[in-house]
Amino acid sequence: MKNDLIFIGVIGGSDVSPQIDGLSEEVGREIARRGAVLVCGGMGGVMEAACRGASDEGGLTIGILPGDSRRDANPHVRIPIVTGIGYARNVAVVKSSQAVIAIDGSYGTLTEIGYALQSGIPVIGLGTWSLSIDGRADKTIIVAKNPRDALDKAMSLIKNP
Amino acid sequence: MKNDLIFIGVIGGSDVSPQIDGLSEEVGREIARRGAVLVCGGMGGVMEAACRGASDEGGLTIGILPGDSRRDANPHVRIPIVTGIGYARNVAVVKSSQAVIAIDGSYGTLTEIGYALQSGIPVIGLGTWSLSIDGRADKTIIVAKNPRDALDKAMSLIKNP
Amino acid sequence: MKNDLIFIGVIGGSDVSPQIDGLSEEVGREIARRGAVLVCGGMGGVMEAACRGASDEGGLTIGILPGDSRRDANPHVRIPIVTGIGYARNVAVVKSSQAVIAIDGSYGTLTEIGYALQSGIPVIGLGTWSLSIDGRADKTIIVAKNPRDALDKAMSLIKNP
Amino acid sequence: MKNDLIFIGVIGGSDVSPQIDGLSEEVGREIARRGAVLVCGGMGGVMEAACRGASDEGGLTIGILPGDSRRDANPHVRIPIVTGIGYARNVAVVKSSQAVIAIDGSYGTLTEIGYALQSGIPVIGLGTWSLSIDGRADKTIIVAKNPRDALDKAMSLIKNP
Repeated sequence: MKNDLIFIGVIGGSDVSPQIDGLSEEVGREIARRGAVLVCGGMGGVMEAACRGASDEGGLTIGILPGDSRRDANPHVRIPIVTGIGYARNVAVVKSSQAVIAIDGSYGTLTEIGYALQSGIPVIGLGTWSLSIDGRADKTIIVAKNPRDALDKAMSLIKNP
Repeated sequence: MKNDLIFIGVIGGSDVSPQIDGLSEEVGREIARRGAVLVCGGMGGVMEAACRGASDEGGLTIGILPGDSRRDANPHVRIPIVTGIGYARNVAVVKSSQAVIAIDGSYGTLTEIGYALQSGIPVIGLGTWSLSIDGRADKTIIVAKNPRDALDKAMSLIKNP
Repeated sequence: MKNDLIFIGVIGGSDVSPQIDGLSEEVGREIARRGAVLVCGGMGGVMEAACRGASDEGGLTIGILPGDSRRDANPHVRIPIVTGIGYARNVAVVKSSQAVIAIDGSYGTLTEIGYALQSGIPVIGLGTWSLSIDGRADKTIIVAKNPRDALDKAMSLIKNP
Repeated sequence: MKNDLIFIGVIGGSDVSPQIDGLSEEVGREIARRGAVLVCGGMGGVMEAACRGASDEGGLTIGILPGDSRRDANPHVRIPIVTGIGYARNVAVVKSSQAVIAIDGSYGTLTEIGYALQSGIPVIGLGTWSLSIDGRADKTIIVAKNPRDALDKAMSLIKNP
């Protein structure tokens, strides 16, 4: 009966433009509409906007916090996990998710993309990093056109592994 | 509206006697009856019995796992958090809880008691470690008589900080 | 040729009496006299006194720091390891040591004792915690009479595993 | 007197071609020739080749290991740090370094690049990831032509902060 919930991560920086804020909120809404649980780092910016969107749609939100207090969580986190391990908690955000949606481009997000790709967890990108090496593009990040497309891609990858 | 949930940790070993199993299950039941969320390390033994009890009473259960897969969680964990950081995750179990109930005496439990006492998080003990130094007993662990008494003590400490 | 260095951990709090300071310094001296490397948490109190002693005797000192800067290390740490993971770093202090000497009784030290006993790493105690459960004393911590005795016991346990 | 050692990180994957192996070894040699300490993740591939080079030149090598045993270290690690926290240890490799040299392109390396850029630690690249976002290249990674050039750049950035 248990472990049947689908957990989708949203990774992105804590400092965002209004446009990215709106995009993140819509990703949160789509996650809740699909009946999935939103996992994130629990702080501001992309994380807060996504939690706000999911929460508005009645979805469950988990914030895996770097610091020592649940009071650090943004107000839309329903389940605050207080790790006390700083940005090493990025590993836990990724590993707790069955797919992650990467929005925009902070360096913290880059660490989470790296952990996800290393662990074989699908990464769907919305305006996020592109990677190349020796002039060859790495195409492992799946580019989405919009929040709905991102969730379509995430859900299909989780349901058909 | 958010962060209003009360999180109570249950800490104890993964290898237990039938008597400790029953005690742990009853602690889980009491946590759910008080409307609190159960936080634990997500594995077997005390953790599994407590999650089973809470789940049977309709309570929410969080398992903060040491390994790399949500499949490691016991079947009564509703919210698996996959940390990938091994037993360093004991810090997160404690810090995510507003009070912890320590059952029985594994060495892992001892690390969690230490982290809780260091962080000023109340520790209520049921058949767990007693500490002394230079012949003087440390009385910081609050001894409970039974699961109901443990929850009475935990709730009163959380509600009247 | 490599991995032939013997690593001995010193675990103890950051706030100590002059008597404990002197005891810790002498433990550090003894570690260096045996040709072993001192591992500790890199901060003040027991850690600083032990590093000072080892350093005065020409020994190598490693400080595994909780914070984000090598500048947090006490001035007698030769090799600062900057973890950024807070007190979860206690695991690394213990696991990097082949035996640990526990001095005095902070709650952080209790977490390190728990991790060491869980991992099968010998713990030698000097004025540190005594543990009991249900009235039965746990005798796994080896009690030493003085710094020399502590090192005799540590070295014999490492050399004859 | 202490904390005067310069620590330079080498980050790169555990599975490498002969060409990358040779490049990594030469980076290790250059680190030792400059009198700096080599910090790495302690495992095989780029890490082992770099440690071998540094060790051959008489340099000190630190391996910050993900697992539970110092026996996991490659044979050229002089100072094994056993963290037990899995790939969350990537944070510690980066934060313990005053500059990092990124070689080749594993996804683990990408996490380390992200942590370094987030922390303001200079990253010098040799055949490693290039980053762009929305078609704009991120130029924060400093591209080096060869191992000697990488060390020239690293040393100048550390000495003139």
